[in-house]
Amino acid sequence: MSEKPLGQPEGPVPPVVVNRLSLYLREVQRLLREGQPTTSSSQLGSRLGFTDAQVRKDLAFFGQFGQPGVGYRCEDLALAIRHILGTHQPWPVALVGVGNLGRALAGYHGFHNQGFHIAAAFEVDPEKIGLPLEGLLVQHIDELSRIVQERGIRLALLAVPAASAQEVCDRIVAAGVAGILNFAPVTLNAPAHVSVVGVDLAKELEQLTFQVINRERLNEPTD
Amino acid sequence: MSEKPLGQPEGPVPPVVVNRLSLYLREVQRLLREGQPTTSSSQLGSRLGFTDAQVRKDLAFFGQFGQPGVGYRCEDLALAIRHILGTHQPWPVALVGVGNLGRALAGYHGFHNQGFHIAAAFEVDPEKIGLPLEGLLVQHIDELSRIVQERGIRLALLAVPAASAQEVCDRIVAAGVAGILNFAPVTLNAPAHVSVVGVDLAKELEQLTFQVINRERLNEPTD
Repeated sequence: MSEKPLGQPEGPVPPVVVNRLSLYLREVQRLLREGQPTTSSSQLGSRLGFTDAQVRKDLAFFGQFGQPGVGYRCEDLALAIRHILGTHQPWPVALVGVGNLGRALAGYHGFHNQGFHIAAAFEVDPEKIGLPLEGLLVQHIDELSRIVQERGIRLALLAVPAASAQEVCDRIVAAGVAGILNFAPVTLNAPAHVSVVGVDLAKELEQLTFQVINRERLNEPTD
Repeated sequence: MSEKPLGQPEGPVPPVVVNRLSLYLREVQRLLREGQPTTSSSQLGSRLGFTDAQVRKDLAFFGQFGQPGVGYRCEDLALAIRHILGTHQPWPVALVGVGNLGRALAGYHGFHNQGFHIAAAFEVDPEKIGLPLEGLLVQHIDELSRIVQERGIRLALLAVPAASAQEVCDRIVAAGVAGILNFAPVTLNAPAHVSVVGVDLAKELEQLTFQVINRERLNEPTD
């Protein structure tokens, strides 16, 4: 292929575009598993419910690629998107909080599938420290700073109750982590050099209730 | 207030707009907790990182509201958005799968905060059936259809391993549920009259890696 690898964005990229890059990546990975070597903006778009213009516009943030009449080679496109997202490199992740949610996250295959792996797990509860968890031993949160430095950990999953989330966030920031995925249903304060993305599962349920009531409304008899 | 309640959308609403409605609702709820009676497009926008034009445009999908010079009354806006999303009414939810993730979801305060409650929990594992879970007793999945009908359950959380997700999805569809929130990292096939929203936690991590690498890139010394 003569296409150049996708480059760095020239300006700020809206989060919603980054979000769609993940969707494109999943779809291309699916096509590869189905044995399809190439794809097109219109195929990606129609499988995901976007226009082909949207797909092209999103990818255009990161440079010119694909070939007229050929479209995209799936392998190249997957690799290019991984480069853009930064997931072509390994990201060891610290799990902080080993309750039900933390244990679920430790075993979540969706992370492994995309190349993330939990490199260490931390707790304050003395009853949980030393317990095995997916090939790790749960460690005391006092060890966080040392282990983050030693293992080059840059991301943390924050899976503690809402009441202690900010305090634990402060400890994660102090340990030198660059990004926090927050599962507690609260907004965290973190310095500008640390990225925080909040997972709001109720938001996903609201997407669903919106779809359900609007479908029911459209199907209501009008007489 | 003289504003009329927000109406039904006149045309199709992009999912991303529905997504932002959830964000607006959380922000307005936060303002209410802080004791602030009114807000504006520009305040909402600046707290969330959007332009005020974006906020106005999103809300305009659902009718005209707010008052010039006053902005929005927080209570009215919160209620209006809940009407749009359908969450002004209760939505009993079935939890299907009571592993670590299912138990985490049963105790997730983010759902309770937005008015969702888990009305029943189901499993196939005989060792889990009959166990207490957040005030419920775990039931056999063979009971799903009957209980969904009896309790008017229209939503399900699908929290089973990827390998059995499609089979369990089929059972949920057969039970008459209208919407499924899928936590398994696979794409489900469901008939058009059932909405499926997939929760892809790796996507959230990819948002984070993108932010981290782009911040690091911008801060790299250029000499």
